[in-house]
Parts: sequence; structure tokens; C-alpha cells
Amino acid sequence: MGIVFGVDIGGTTIKMGVFSEMGRLLEKFEIRTETKVRDVFIDIAEKVKEKILKYNEECIGVGVGLPGPVDDMGNVYGCVNLNIADTFNVQEKFKDLLPGIKIKGTNDANAAAFGEYISGSGKGYENMVLITLGTGVGSGIITKGKILNGSNGGAGEIGHIFVERLENKRCNCGKKGCLEQYASSTGILNMAKEQLIIDKRNDLEYSSTKDVIDSGKNGDITGLKIMEKFGDYMGAALSYVAEIINTDCFVFGGGVSKSGDFILGFVEKYFKEYTFSPCSNVDFRLAELGNDAGIYGACGLIIRN
Amino acid sequence: MGIVFGVDIGGTTIKMGVFSEMGRLLEKFEIRTETKVRDVFIDIAEKVKEKILKYNEECIGVGVGLPGPVDDMGNVYGCVNLNIADTFNVQEKFKDLLPGIKIKGTNDANAAAFGEYISGSGKGYENMVLITLGTGVGSGIITKGKILNGSNGGAGEIGHIFVERLENKRCNCGKKGCLEQYASSTGILNMAKEQLIIDKRNDLEYSSTKDVIDSGKNGDITGLKIMEKFGDYMGAALSYVAEIINTDCFVFGGGVSKSGDFILGFVEKYFKEYTFSPCSNVDFRLAELGNDAGIYGACGLIIRN
Repeated sequence: MGIVFGVDIGGTTIKMGVFSEMGRLLEKFEIRTETKVRDVFIDIAEKVKEKILKYNEECIGVGVGLPGPVDDMGNVYGCVNLNIADTFNVQEKFKDLLPGIKIKGTNDANAAAFGEYISGSGKGYENMVLITLGTGVGSGIITKGKILNGSNGGAGEIGHIFVERLENKRCNCGKKGCLEQYASSTGILNMAKEQLIIDKRNDLEYSSTKDVIDSGKNGDITGLKIMEKFGDYMGAALSYVAEIINTDCFVFGGGVSKSGDFILGFVEKYFKEYTFSPCSNVDFRLAELGNDAGIYGACGLIIRN
Repeated sequence: MGIVFGVDIGGTTIKMGVFSEMGRLLEKFEIRTETKVRDVFIDIAEKVKEKILKYNEECIGVGVGLPGPVDDMGNVYGCVNLNIADTFNVQEKFKDLLPGIKIKGTNDANAAAFGEYISGSGKGYENMVLITLGTGVGSGIITKGKILNGSNGGAGEIGHIFVERLENKRCNCGKKGCLEQYASSTGILNMAKEQLIIDKRNDLEYSSTKDVIDSGKNGDITGLKIMEKFGDYMGAALSYVAEIINTDCFVFGGGVSKSGDFILGFVEKYFKEYTFSPCSNVDFRLAELGNDAGIYGACGLIIRN
């Protein structure tokens, strides 16, 4: 028996899991992402070596989810959150740090999708998409049981799908009318604040996305209008995903998805309206693994890909 | 040496090619699609057997492009143009007709895309999409050198991508605002006829899509407006494709694409405007193989997949 590492590198913490070669989680822990002081890859390698000594077993490999675009060859096209502007290769990075150990990398959203596919809500589906609804909107795509990275690691960039021709304000990316402007937590809150003014609601204030969703749950007319708008934009974007790749299942994760089936109901309603019927038979599910999805998926890069 | 067959089943004719096992076209011919009189699969099998005798070589396999959705297992979810409503399996269909011969099937649009990928404009790209602009709008998607069929053969259904919220008329599919309503040959002509009325153009008449494109080429203001609209809708739809699957190359085929670079210029202009920049580095090319793309791709199912 050997052990496998699943590593999920975030901007503030690095999550690491030690797995059996069958993919069972033996131990998980976090270290801080110290981008200013030293190379994060050195810290990861030291922890890997420490755990190999502890378990006294062969290391089958280390899978890594990275906060940037990664292609099938392990080329990483920069990681803004790690202060790395240049392209590098993840295998190369670890070559001298962990000599002889198999290394595989993918984007963090793709790693999370692969984790849900292997061990979470996507289990049993050959094709699935994990949609992450948080401060941004992202996705990871699994087709025929494999991660779809795309030609330069840019597959699944649904947050910047163009959904509104009448938008005047620019998205962070520079375009106008991106899905993220309406379906991210910031987007929902912004839409809701504007709607309060339009609806002349001096009786109501929203200070968080949760406030907006809760007011919708409570049947407030302004809150419900925002839920409809959110569902409309998200449903349209997912209709494109379904028509282009013909998937079996959408799994929803990230902070906004914690509101659960209530918000998914609005998405599904518009999705059914917009999607070409031969492509519309898609299950809607909530993610199961939470913050552990990334380490499960990273481990899967070694044992399942 | 052996031979391979590439078969492209259309509603009126069945195109067949005999290839060397290296994929060189040795001979091509057509037979009529006699759906009313007899089973098209019997006709195909007879021709295959006749050619095996003629060439006196081992048959490596028969690849088939079918006018309906086909999944990775060769299940065909009905073929309207062949009067087949039920789901069938293409391997099963040929099992007794061509015993012991390897059979592989895919959708005809996917076969054409695979043909352009192997032997046409998509050569050298690992990821590409063939967009067919004809009486409908379709596409075939190649990712990592493989056809993306999707979970029930519905991948690449870009003709029914929702692109216009303000549409009142229904698409043939029952939805409103599908890409096909603006970017197919019928769609272009319909838009142009409406624009002639809006522009009060009693001096001009359009009787074909070619008329519209030609008037745009000649600098006519109404013709150019339609080219802009066509480019806008098509560019938006392709931005979704690029952001979802992150492809390297769009290849354009079908009747409308015969107008060449002139119309692609309008598509590319809007594509660049709408596409998230990390996904926007996509080459635009015209298809090379014309009507032969399908037989090349069908042959490729046997020798390359």
C-alpha cells in the first residue's frame, strides 16, 4: 500500500490531504500560504516529506489544485493570488523538491469538480459540471470522467459569459454584461440594492447577499424579483453549457449555494425555459464535500486520471 | 494492408469513401437514401461487401456518420430524416449485416468536424470546433483530439443557443431567440427582409441569402446592417463556446460559409468584443473538405479514435 497527497493551494491557506491509494482520506491539515516570505512549493514539499516519514509508506504521487489556469501538460499560466505572473510547469516546480514523485496539477475549480465527481454529488455521472457561486462565479467541467482543462486552462470560465446586452457598468474583466455581474454574491447584492431604489423601499435595507436571499425566502417582493433575475441569468448561462457539452448533472457549490434548494429552484425554472429540449435533461444538485472537494479532486489526479 | 470505410448518411444521399488504413481516400461514391423502400443499412452493407471483394483486402472497419444524436456507445437517439423514431445502436444494426467487422458511429456534424480535424482546416489543432452555417446552424466539437458527443449525443447544439431576449417569433424547436433564427441562411434572409421594410427600401429586394451577403459586400447599408447583426449573434454564441470549452480554432463550413472571409470578419469582430480575454485566442478558418468532411471523419472513427 502507498499514500497519495491531494493539495489545494488557495490565496490564504493551503489545504492538504493524505489519502490511501484507494482514495480514502487518512488525514487532512492546512498550512498558511506564505507567498511573501518564501516559495509555497517548498512548504508543500516539506510537509509531504514529513508525512511520508510518518506513514512510512511509498508515495504514489502528489496532485495539486492551483489558483490559476492549468493545461493538460501541467503548464500554469500565472497565479495572481500567489504573486506569480509568469507561466511555469507544476511538474518542473516539484522536480527537485520531491525527486522521483509523480506530480499532477489542475486549476482549483477543476480539482473541486473532480472531487465532487469522484466522492461527492457528482458520483455516478459520467459528465458533470461543478458551478461555484461565491465572490465570483466559476465552474469545473468533467466530460467522460475526465477534467476538461481546455487549450490553455481556460475551460469553464462561465463567470464571464455575456448575458445582458443592456448593461452599462463594466465587470472586473473589462467587459459589460458578464454573468458574474448578476450571479455572484457581489452581483446579487448590487442588483438588490438597485432594486430597492427602483421599488422605493425605504422600509428595507440589504447589507449582505444572505439578507437578499432571506428576504426572498420570506416572500418579500423585492427579494423575489432579485431571485428571479439571478435565476434568469444563471439559467441562461447554464443552458449554453448544456447545449454545448450536453452534460448530465450540475452540482452547485460555494457560499451562495449554502442557501440551498431555494435559489436552485429559480435557476432550474429558467434553465428549462431556455434549453433546447434534447439537452435539457440535467440533474441539479448541491455540492457535498464543501472545502474538501479540492483535496479529493487533487488526489484523484493521481489515482483516477 | 487493409481498407476502411467512411460513410456519411444524409437524408437524400449516402456518401461513402474507401480509405487505406493510413486514411488515404482510394475511392468515393454515393448511393441514394431509400428510406421508404428498404433499410439504408442493408444498402450500405451490400456496398461495403462489394468493395471488399473488389479491393480483395481485409476490412479494418466501417465508420458511420448519422443524421441524429449519437452517444459514445453508438446509441442513436432517432433519425428524423431516415424515418427512424426509435433509439437504436449502430453496432447492433450492422452486427448481422457485416459480421465480424468493427463498426463505429457518431453524429454527422461530429463526423464532419473530425474530418476537418484529421485532414482539413483543423489539422494541427488539439481542440477545434466545426461550425456549419446552412439551413440550420450546428457544430461538432473536438477536445484533446477526440469527438465530444455528450451524454446523449447532444453536444454542439449551438443552433439553439438563446441569444435574443426581445424575440417574439418561435424557432422550429419551440423556443424564442435561438441563434438559428438569425444566423442560418433562412434566419439571415428573414432578418434582411424585415430590415428592408424598416429601412423603407423600395429599391431593393432579397430573394436569397446570397443576395443579402452580396449586397453587404457591395457596401449597401441594409446589407451591412444584417451582416453586423449576424456577426453579433454568432460572435456572442461563439464567445460562450470559447469560454466553456476553451478551444483553439473555429472552422466554418456549410453553404453560408462559401461567402468566405467577408462574413467571418463580422463574427470575429463581435467574438473579440464578447469573449473573456484568456479564452479569446481562437483562430478563425474556413473548412477545406466541403462535402467530403463527413466520410473523412467517419473513417477517422476507425483509424484514429
